[in-house]
Amino acid sequence: MKRIESDSNPSVKQWKKLLTRKEREKTGTFIIEGPHLVEEALSYNADIKHLIVEENFPLPESWDTGRIPVWQVTEKIIKTLSETEKPQGVVAVCGMTDSENLDLSSKSKLVLIDGVQDPGNLGTIIRTADSAGVDAVILGEGTVDVYNGKVMRSAQGSVFHIPVVKMNLKEAVESCKKSGITVYATSLKDSSDMRDIQPAEGFALLVGNEGSGVQEAWLKEADEKLIIPIFGKAESLNVAVATGILLYELQRTRK
Amino acid sequence: MKRIESDSNPSVKQWKKLLTRKEREKTGTFIIEGPHLVEEALSYNADIKHLIVEENFPLPESWDTGRIPVWQVTEKIIKTLSETEKPQGVVAVCGMTDSENLDLSSKSKLVLIDGVQDPGNLGTIIRTADSAGVDAVILGEGTVDVYNGKVMRSAQGSVFHIPVVKMNLKEAVESCKKSGITVYATSLKDSSDMRDIQPAEGFALLVGNEGSGVQEAWLKEADEKLIIPIFGKAESLNVAVATGILLYELQRTRK
Repeated sequence: MKRIESDSNPSVKQWKKLLTRKEREKTGTFIIEGPHLVEEALSYNADIKHLIVEENFPLPESWDTGRIPVWQVTEKIIKTLSETEKPQGVVAVCGMTDSENLDLSSKSKLVLIDGVQDPGNLGTIIRTADSAGVDAVILGEGTVDVYNGKVMRSAQGSVFHIPVVKMNLKEAVESCKKSGITVYATSLKDSSDMRDIQPAEGFALLVGNEGSGVQEAWLKEADEKLIIPIFGKAESLNVAVATGILLYELQRTRK
Repeated sequence: MKRIESDSNPSVKQWKKLLTRKEREKTGTFIIEGPHLVEEALSYNADIKHLIVEENFPLPESWDTGRIPVWQVTEKIIKTLSETEKPQGVVAVCGMTDSENLDLSSKSKLVLIDGVQDPGNLGTIIRTADSAGVDAVILGEGTVDVYNGKVMRSAQGSVFHIPVVKMNLKEAVESCKKSGITVYATSLKDSSDMRDIQPAEGFALLVGNEGSGVQEAWLKEADEKLIIPIFGKAESLNVAVATGILLYELQRTRK
């Protein structure tokens, strides 16, 4: 284990830059923090480039760090690399997965995201999609960066369980149609009550921006528009909650 | 409309204190911000004590401010009273509703909350409960303060649509049993798949803390423990998402 004591160390300075989207995209790497996320990354063979631990952090014996470089650093350095109020002593630098190679035609349950802006919402959608057994999550243009720290923390490791990839939604919808997957979009207008349809075995659920919903351009392409009935006085549901309700409704007979 | 220009004005100083739980509890008042929340408060006859608007904020004609004192203030004062990065020009001081008088026996659909800590989660649960036509939300001990600004913003006005009250969970559960309401609790252990039960017409759904779930003491009192099936690799669902999925599942035949 190598040791770094100065927060002006060039590696530390470089890692810190990964808290910006620009640097993440330039380098193809991102930061995760906290023992739970690091453990998920290790368990699911994520591409961990560096493991950075505070001097007092007890490295669990069950962690197989193999050939990953492990750096012991000061509490101050961990704080520099953390975005949370109470850093938990461990941070990792990971490489992004190559999303170019995702073959959508091999997937039968998808979530497509059109412009979700809040990192907590995106992370929660990814966690929910994973729970509901979805095969991949597609991020359309205008969606918040999945490698944002808040997204990572809300997703609680689900980004390491299923592919989460950026893709043009037009292409994604066309690909679904080619493979015979039904595209359902959430919409408050001209839509069917989710409980009244007979869900398709293979489906893509398209959800949209917190304020404006799914864009008209994609709504037009959907096979069916769905609405969750509102029994009370709220105008709508949070997008992550709506995604959860719909994913379970669409799989109401899944065993 | 009266005008305040100095942020050391005693009223401003007093209002600012309402950003702390201690002062909110001492005075029985709280702050909401942004036109949407203020409009909901006006529409649902919340007890608005003061309406505070920035000098350039266009007061909508549809807002019936009646006998509510309206204060015109500087941008700096609005910023002082706001917890968001981009304040939207309007803030209101509201009085808490008297929750002592809530008669649970008149309610047939409830959500009971045991120790939810994250303000965004609590707000989203309240918004979800409102959407799902729940009659009241009960906050057990250890739950984050509902008058926290982040709770208010996530709830998007639903706190003005349905009663949200603090209550001892033991009392709440006993009251449900007396009125013949079935108490369902979420639990990962010894629980029934939510899709396998025949939901009761009147129910209380008990959900718990983000990390530890519903306390054993209340689980024992529940009529039935429910689980949402996990089809993927995630360990669990976010508590607000789980609440949404369960509330709609429990009302799968509601018209």
